[in-house]
Amino acid sequence: MEKKQSFALALHGGAGTITRASLTPELEKEYRTALRQALEVGYNILREGGSALTAVEATVVNLEDCPLFNAGRGSVFNKLGFHEMDASIMCGRNLEAGAITGVRNIKNPILLASEVLHHSDHVFLSHPGAEEFARNQGLAFEPDAYFFTQQRYDQWQALRDSDVYMLDHSETEEKKFGTVGAVAVDLEGNLAAATSTGGMTNKNFNRIGDTPVIGAGTYANNKTCAVSCTGHGEYFIRNVVAYDISCLMEYKGLSLTEASNLVVHQKLKQHGGEGGLVAVSYTCEVALPFNSEGMYRGSWVAGQEPTVAIYQE
Amino acid sequence: MEKKQSFALALHGGAGTITRASLTPELEKEYRTALRQALEVGYNILREGGSALTAVEATVVNLEDCPLFNAGRGSVFNKLGFHEMDASIMCGRNLEAGAITGVRNIKNPILLASEVLHHSDHVFLSHPGAEEFARNQGLAFEPDAYFFTQQRYDQWQALRDSDVYMLDHSETEEKKFGTVGAVAVDLEGNLAAATSTGGMTNKNFNRIGDTPVIGAGTYANNKTCAVSCTGHGEYFIRNVVAYDISCLMEYKGLSLTEASNLVVHQKLKQHGGEGGLVAVSYTCEVALPFNSEGMYRGSWVAGQEPTVAIYQE
Repeated sequence: MEKKQSFALALHGGAGTITRASLTPELEKEYRTALRQALEVGYNILREGGSALTAVEATVVNLEDCPLFNAGRGSVFNKLGFHEMDASIMCGRNLEAGAITGVRNIKNPILLASEVLHHSDHVFLSHPGAEEFARNQGLAFEPDAYFFTQQRYDQWQALRDSDVYMLDHSETEEKKFGTVGAVAVDLEGNLAAATSTGGMTNKNFNRIGDTPVIGAGTYANNKTCAVSCTGHGEYFIRNVVAYDISCLMEYKGLSLTEASNLVVHQKLKQHGGEGGLVAVSYTCEVALPFNSEGMYRGSWVAGQEPTVAIYQE
Repeated sequence: MEKKQSFALALHGGAGTITRASLTPELEKEYRTALRQALEVGYNILREGGSALTAVEATVVNLEDCPLFNAGRGSVFNKLGFHEMDASIMCGRNLEAGAITGVRNIKNPILLASEVLHHSDHVFLSHPGAEEFARNQGLAFEPDAYFFTQQRYDQWQALRDSDVYMLDHSETEEKKFGTVGAVAVDLEGNLAAATSTGGMTNKNFNRIGDTPVIGAGTYANNKTCAVSCTGHGEYFIRNVVAYDISCLMEYKGLSLTEASNLVVHQKLKQHGGEGGLVAVSYTCEVALPFNSEGMYRGSWVAGQEPTVAIYQE
């Protein structure tokens, strides 16, 4: 008898110097609640037979709408005081993909990436062409005020007119990599991955990180795995991190856990590349490795309990 | 006794529907002469002990300066009548990389990618931030007139106000993928790859192809190979083509020729992805596979004769 296909979902809300000392109990609870709610959104879709692509899209929309995370509504301020966002999504069944970079005022960048996947001849669009495409597709725009959060504004005020940029809403001694992402395998055995970010506080405008780069920040292939990354993007681009995990499985026969541990704890670390990733395999294996102090993360495999975590366990 | 390290260089000037019928004998001669001259630029650097990184940069500068090729000076017109250029470069010794997308008026986009590699905290910059960085680094800008060629202008005039975009300066029935690129291995055993493009005639502005995407259009790693691609960029992004060849060598033990033939003639073709690539391995193996009708290309391995070719042989 053929093994009944199961399903699984994993997500992240960024990695970095996240320690127990840096979060108040109240804030920690808010993060855990938000992660748990996003997990439920994707899990319910998968349980009802929805596709992995739909599940990761809806999960990331939920995380983008939450001001706690640096993506969508909670995006940080760039050097000029704008919110510039990147996102990408990939379908493991047919290797179709959509990615966008440097967009402003798009309520849910992951939905724009998804429109590029489904309704464009292209894979990768950037501002302002990406915004023109968004208008043609009838996507929701929001005024700058929608993306305003006092905490992000204060962080930017502390850095503007300096050459310092920050990877997220962190204190000076901290580094946080503000990204959200989700990966899933559905009841049909199809995989998908999605990633979205608001970039780095006070970054020079028009820097592109790994989030919208297919193969670096996002990758999905039904033969192997779906991967969504969060970390110091430059290292993830140079190491083609997401596709590397797929190749280690397909060409070298490693398991998802072996492949993702090798990439995060050895290859990236050896180059000084800080961050982590979430991944699921076509066999519903889940991996959530990170080499930073913490990573907002969660996973839920069919028939098991959901897990949500922040620090090193 | 240790085997004496040799050196090798390969380059391309784009792939597509390039047939004997489509080129006059005079134009064919011009292309062959230009390819041969660019080969000499890189070969002389390598022979004198220069680095692979210097050699691929200088080779691509030479191709960018030649109006025959769709990169730098010979860039096509986008939908709004601009020249928008992309480029990337990667060093196989330390996996450092630089990439830029959507830049205008930069005389040599590959030199800007190289500045990003050497002098930026970032890997990937886009217009207009990339141009600001170029000004800070003192790179040469040129007015729009520098990038004007009558033939490109006539092609754009024939397409503007339509929704048709063309992959290069081709007649309606043809497809050409206008890109230039070079790969090299030097006397020290270091590898490098560089790619540059002027995009697609009448393209929607801000579409990003594979050229500036590290892992897709460009990749170099001293353990394996250096690769520069030219083709229908969306397929090259989704298949992470350049890094796939490296992984097939590193993880599966394929030779450069086996790996690049598998990717170009099977994996890409099966998805309908047209184009080709040039690659060299750390053992000075050279591969120039393409699945289109032609590819402007050349290679030169130390101690052998240079080769230049256009059509299927």
